[in-house]
Order: sequence, then structure tokens, then C-alpha cells
Amino acid sequence: MTVTVSATLAVNEALNDKRRQGVRVLPLGFGEAGLPVHPVMRDRLSAGNGANAYGPVAGSAALREAAAGYWERRGLPTDPGMVIAGPGSKPLLYSLLLEIGGDTAIAAPSWVSYAAQSRLVGQRPIMVPTATGQGGVPQPDLLHAAVTDAREQGRTVNAVVVTVPDNPTGTVASAETVRRLAEVARELDLVIISDEIYRDLVHLGPEGEDRVVVHSPAEYAPERTVISSGLSKNLALGGWRIGVLRLPDSEIGHRLRGGLLGVASEIWSSPAAPVQEAASYAFTEPDELVDHIDRSRRLHGIVARAVTDVFTRAGATVAAPTAAFYLYPDFEPLRERLAELHGVTTGPGLTGLLLERYGMGVLPAVEFGESTDALRMRVATSLLYGESEERRYAALSARDPLALPWVRAHLTRLSEVLDSVLSESPKHASTVIPVRREVARA
Amino acid sequence: MTVTVSATLAVNEALNDKRRQGVRVLPLGFGEAGLPVHPVMRDRLSAGNGANAYGPVAGSAALREAAAGYWERRGLPTDPGMVIAGPGSKPLLYSLLLEIGGDTAIAAPSWVSYAAQSRLVGQRPIMVPTATGQGGVPQPDLLHAAVTDAREQGRTVNAVVVTVPDNPTGTVASAETVRRLAEVARELDLVIISDEIYRDLVHLGPEGEDRVVVHSPAEYAPERTVISSGLSKNLALGGWRIGVLRLPDSEIGHRLRGGLLGVASEIWSSPAAPVQEAASYAFTEPDELVDHIDRSRRLHGIVARAVTDVFTRAGATVAAPTAAFYLYPDFEPLRERLAELHGVTTGPGLTGLLLERYGMGVLPAVEFGESTDALRMRVATSLLYGESEERRYAALSARDPLALPWVRAHLTRLSEVLDSVLSESPKHASTVIPVRREVARA
Repeated sequence: MTVTVSATLAVNEALNDKRRQGVRVLPLGFGEAGLPVHPVMRDRLSAGNGANAYGPVAGSAALREAAAGYWERRGLPTDPGMVIAGPGSKPLLYSLLLEIGGDTAIAAPSWVSYAAQSRLVGQRPIMVPTATGQGGVPQPDLLHAAVTDAREQGRTVNAVVVTVPDNPTGTVASAETVRRLAEVARELDLVIISDEIYRDLVHLGPEGEDRVVVHSPAEYAPERTVISSGLSKNLALGGWRIGVLRLPDSEIGHRLRGGLLGVASEIWSSPAAPVQEAASYAFTEPDELVDHIDRSRRLHGIVARAVTDVFTRAGATVAAPTAAFYLYPDFEPLRERLAELHGVTTGPGLTGLLLERYGMGVLPAVEFGESTDALRMRVATSLLYGESEERRYAALSARDPLALPWVRAHLTRLSEVLDSVLSESPKHASTVIPVRREVARA
Repeated sequence: MTVTVSATLAVNEALNDKRRQGVRVLPLGFGEAGLPVHPVMRDRLSAGNGANAYGPVAGSAALREAAAGYWERRGLPTDPGMVIAGPGSKPLLYSLLLEIGGDTAIAAPSWVSYAAQSRLVGQRPIMVPTATGQGGVPQPDLLHAAVTDAREQGRTVNAVVVTVPDNPTGTVASAETVRRLAEVARELDLVIISDEIYRDLVHLGPEGEDRVVVHSPAEYAPERTVISSGLSKNLALGGWRIGVLRLPDSEIGHRLRGGLLGVASEIWSSPAAPVQEAASYAFTEPDELVDHIDRSRRLHGIVARAVTDVFTRAGATVAAPTAAFYLYPDFEPLRERLAELHGVTTGPGLTGLLLERYGMGVLPAVEFGESTDALRMRVATSLLYGESEERRYAALSARDPLALPWVRAHLTRLSEVLDSVLSESPKHASTVIPVRREVARA
């Protein structure tokens, strides 16, 4: 078994090391929502501080009912009996891959952990490219071809993973793309694992309207779509470790449920009880939390677009992000210049240069299942809001968050770094080390 | 993949169902510590209610330092860098088995999840009997023979799991047994996984002295022993999901650490941050928590011995428990009578009868890796302390907890049930159903 630390967590730890060494850093690597815990959630966690029973493996009845209501309000009627909670959506996704077995088709690019988890349970993931602007959803025709091909070679392929809205691109696949994906999955008898953890973080337009509508594969192939979600992104509660699965109310869903509960009971027992109590409240979507999320996604949109502009001005191409707090710039138009100035010809070469010379933490496309050559990188924008709780609150409530001095300083620094990389030659080219290596050993 | 819900969790859920149906139950199935959260731990969790960052995969520096101190005070000097925290010791043990690979030798009887986890990661567990009164430690000679035999058949065997003090027997292996186990493990080059989650729960003697001394294999084979622990048992915080691993500061330990962090980062990321903050405090062992644990283990001992007496009087043989809150009575001396009266000839037959006719939840030996024929069962005594927080506090502070009406009622009921089973013939023999089946489908 040779698994290195998840790249997103690794770059986070690398930047923390640099910070401790007094190096100025640009924290664009880690997908943490970068916002404080809402006071009502703090209170709810405290109210649950006496809860110490393990409770049901699937999570408490209150939590499952609340999560069912959450989906119901999004047009997806849900039986609480078909909800399973876990300590984050990550272990839930792992247990799904373990339970479903066979190989899994995964979008390229996609979140670092799908392919890593797939390998961890002994699979060979089948990476299928997405179309620009349709992040998270394998191109349906390519999916069909790849799965058919793998099956002709004698492989078993049982599932496809999609992410709507998408990490790493911050884009949201269209209804048409999702519908066609669902059609192909049905034709090929694949379970669709739809990671919808960013669902609530669609950016807002100038009039406060949603910039895009999120469509779940569960609308088109309800019998075979498993949805995962959680509170890590919309309420910035990643560190609380709470996720939920919605299984289809179908033969597939009921079969999966029995197996998943078995796996869950042997790997983690149940999510932390006090966290379950707080999460039960959050999934009822009280007004104060809905307002909080609205302010968050307004902020995410404004900052993500501003960062996109900086990369665009530097000469990279970027599909405009419309949800979450990521963008995925492509330095392909600057390939020659990077090779000339720095001898950089690969994604890890470029992100290693940015980390070592400028303390800028981003992740290369290869971490998301693309080729090493690809000069794309994921840029996470949410840690620009500030390091202290005060600054994060200020960013949340600012009419113009880009005018806040620390946000502006980060954006200015980003421009400088990109200008410098694209115009200067480095002094310490020999110190360039791929992020992952360095940290996995640390 | 065919994994049913962990038997301990399943019997817990089965009894809850019966309770809801108004059936009087004797909750002796589930290994929950059955005590309230200490107020200082409630306060510490609340103080951490603003912590929402994922933090390091291995757990916060404060938590790892505190855990290192905990082991240091037990004669095991520990580098905080060799500590890994996780959401319970269960996922830590799972990840260890996954990382170590090969097959694993496991004590019979032993906690239900070792063998289940071993199968879940694709292993064929090698069950090795323990000696009476030496629970949790495979008999060293039998271990040597079993591993040698398996290797001669071409199998790879890389690890052995031990439990000191033991679940399910409540006994503590002697220094001599542990030392010989460690010797054999070294001779066969096996990693020793030592589950010491009950370490702090040694029963107290009449003068308040520890009834036994716990010896860790880490004393005898420090280079190859991984210790797991947590707060689920000593502080009754099972529902908080926090566990810790102590890796050896050796080549084996450093190799495991890298792999484990990779696995952890892909399966669970980190334990819940507010729980980590509270746990950091607990592992420093402040006086008020030490006092609380002392009162707990006094109570555990008194009740476990009283329950042991009831089983002994009924004619079962029981090795006297000296730690934790379990005993493991053997109905072998009553085999003929059980066959005559009820046609019961197997462990699941007996525990099914007890559950269905008397609402008495215990787990048969087969769940702990012994044969179906064995008429042994694990009896967990900690849920007898009461269902409400008030009663549990009363039990903790009572000079004579056996005089509390609800505890006495449970013990009386237990005597009645055993008398009845061993003297009457059942009216509803046809309703006998093994516990596991019933619940896994529910």
C-alpha cells in the first residue's frame, strides 16, 4: 500500500510550515471554506455537549429527518430511512466505493480523493475528461466509450462519480450535460455517485439572483443516483466532520444501504454525537443560516471572479467559476515562456516553482487526475478572506470585500507573483520540488 | 462485499426496538461505558465550539503532546510525532490493518470488529485461542504454530492483535503471557497491534488498590508494538469518536506512520476539531478526571463481580473479571439441560432465546470468533447503571451501588431469567432468531 497524504491536506500543511518559518504565503491550495462558525451553530454544539452515546450507525433519527427535508426542498423527495450520516462525506464516499466494488469512472479533473480512494479499495479508476465549463461531469460520449472499452477488456465497471457544482473548476454542469450523463449511466447500468457538497454555494448575480441552476443526476436517473453532501462547505464546518448520503429508494439503494451500514459499523461506528445534534438543526435550514450562506456565496463569487481576472490578465485561460470557491486556470498559452524562463514544462514544475519561490500554494492538474504535462492548476480562493475570525466576519459583511486591505493585499501580491514568474528568471531553480513529495515525507 | 452491521451495535439497536415496543429489557449487549460526560469535558467541548478548521491529519499538536504524556506516565516514553489521532480507535485499527496488509492473527475470543475489519480489507483472519483468564492475548505457542502453518501454506502473516485489558472477558493477561507473546511476535517478525482502550479501567480492590497490573507488549517488544487507545471507555465518550495510536519509534513505526497518514487523509481527514480540543485536555489527566475514572472503575468492578456471581450461582463457569465492564460466562456445564429444555445446542440459539423470550441482550461467542457450538456469551454490565443521567451519577457516587433499586432490580431480573431458562420449557421456541440476522435486515 503506497498512499501519500491527500494533496489538498498536504499543501495546507506545507504552507503552515512556511508560515512558521516567517515566509509570506499566498494560501490558494486548500479547499477550506475560510469562514467562522455561525454563533447559532456554536450554541447548538454546546447544547449537545452531554451527548456521549454511540447512537445508530446511520446517524440519529433527527439528523436523518432534517437531511431528508433539505433534499425535499430541492425537489428530491427523500425517505429519512434512506439517509446515512457519517464523519464527513469523505468516509461515506470511501465506503460507497468499497461497497459497490468493481472499477469506477471518475471525471478528469476532479477532487483529489475520488481516484485515491478508488485505488485504496483496490480499484483501477477510469479517468474520463470533462468539457470546459462542464466541470465534474465526465463527457457522456467519452464515458460511454471508456466504460465499453474497459468492459471489452474484461474489467468490471460499476459506478461513475460526478461533482455538481464542481471542485476543482468552480463550474456547474448544465442540465443537458447532466441529463446525458444520467442516460449513459442507465444504459451502462452504472451507479451514479453525485457529490453535491457545493450545491448551496452557487454564486450570486448583481441582483442577488443565483447565477446558475444546479441539476442533480437524481432528477434524471433517480433509481441509481446516490447523493453525498455535508456542512463542510456551505457552513464552513469541515473540521466538524459531518456528511450525509441520500440513497435512492430503489432496489439499488436498498441493497447499498445494508452493505454500507455494515461497512460503516466496522470503520467508524457513527459521527460524533454532539456534532450530529448541531447538524440536525442546520439541515432544517433556519433563516439565520440561510442568510449566512447567502452572504458566504456572495463573498465566494466576488473573490473568485476577482482572482479569475488576475489570472486572465496574466495570460492564463480560465472558465468563469459560478459556484464554490475555486478556479482552474490553464497556463497553456504561456507554455513557451515558462519553458524559456524557468525550464518549467509540467504542472508540478510550475506549482513547485510558485510554492518554493513565492510561498504560493496551489495544486497542479495532475493531482486532479490530469496529465503531468497539463499546465493547469486549482486555485482555492477562500483562504484569502483573512486569518482571524474578525477579518473573516468583516469579509462576510463587507459591501465591497475587495476593498478590505488584507484581501486587496493578497490580490496585489498574486498579480506581482504572476508578473514576476512570467518575466523574471529564478535564482533558486534547483530548489523546485513537487509539493506532494515534500510533505508526504514530512 | 457482504458485511453486516457490527454485532455490538446491532444488539444495541435490537434492544432499542424492544424498548419502543414496551418490552422490559436487560441491556447486557453493548460495550458502552454507561456513564455521563464529566462536566469539565462538557465545558471543554463548548470551549472548542468555534474550531472548524480541518487541522493536521494526525491530529492537533496539543492533542498529540497530551497523548504522549499519557503514555509517558505509564512507563512508555512517547514522541508526539509518533502519535496519530482519529475519529475513534476503530478507524485507526482499520487503517492499520489496511496499511500493514497480509493476514492478521487475532485472539479468540476477541472484540467483534478485529476479524470483521480484517475481512473488510481483504484478509483471512487467523483466529488463535486465548487461555482462560488471559483474555485478549493469543496463546503464544498456538500463535507460533498457527502463523508457521499459515506461512507454510504460502500465506503472508504480518500482524497480531492483542487486547489488554480484554474485551470480551474482562480479564487482564499476565506479564508472563504478554512477554511470551512479544517474544513470539519478534521471532515471527509480526507487528503487534495492542488495543489498550480499557487500560484505565482496572477494578479496585477493597482497599482501593488496583486488582491487577496491566502490561503492554510495548514493554517487551517496543520496536514492533502499536498501541491504540481513546476516551470511549475511561471517560465514557464513545459517542464523541476520538482515538489515538502510539507508533513505535523504530523503522517499523516510521514506515507505518507515512502510510497511515496517507490512508487517514483519504478516509477521514481528521477527528472533529472541537472534540480534539476537549481530548487534549483529557489526556493531560487533571485530578478531577482521574477521580472520575477512579469512581467509574470502582463501580465497574462492583457490578461486574455481582453479575458474575449471578451467573456462577446459575451454574455457568466464569473467569473473574478484573477490568472493564464485561464478563464471559460459559454455559457448557448446562449444555444437557439447555438441550433438553429448549433444544438449544449453540451459542446463537441460547442468546436468541434470551433475547426473544426475556429481552435480555447478550452476544454469543461466535461473534467473538469462537465456534457456533460454544455456549459462551459476552455480558456487558455497564448499561445496568441506569438509563438517566441522574441514575448514572447516583451509581457513580453510591457507597453501595448494588443497593440502588434499579441496579438491584436488574440483578434480580437477571437471576429470574437464568432460573427460568434453566428450569422451564419455552412457549415460543419457534420465535428464536439469531440477533445479527434480524437487525442487519432492519
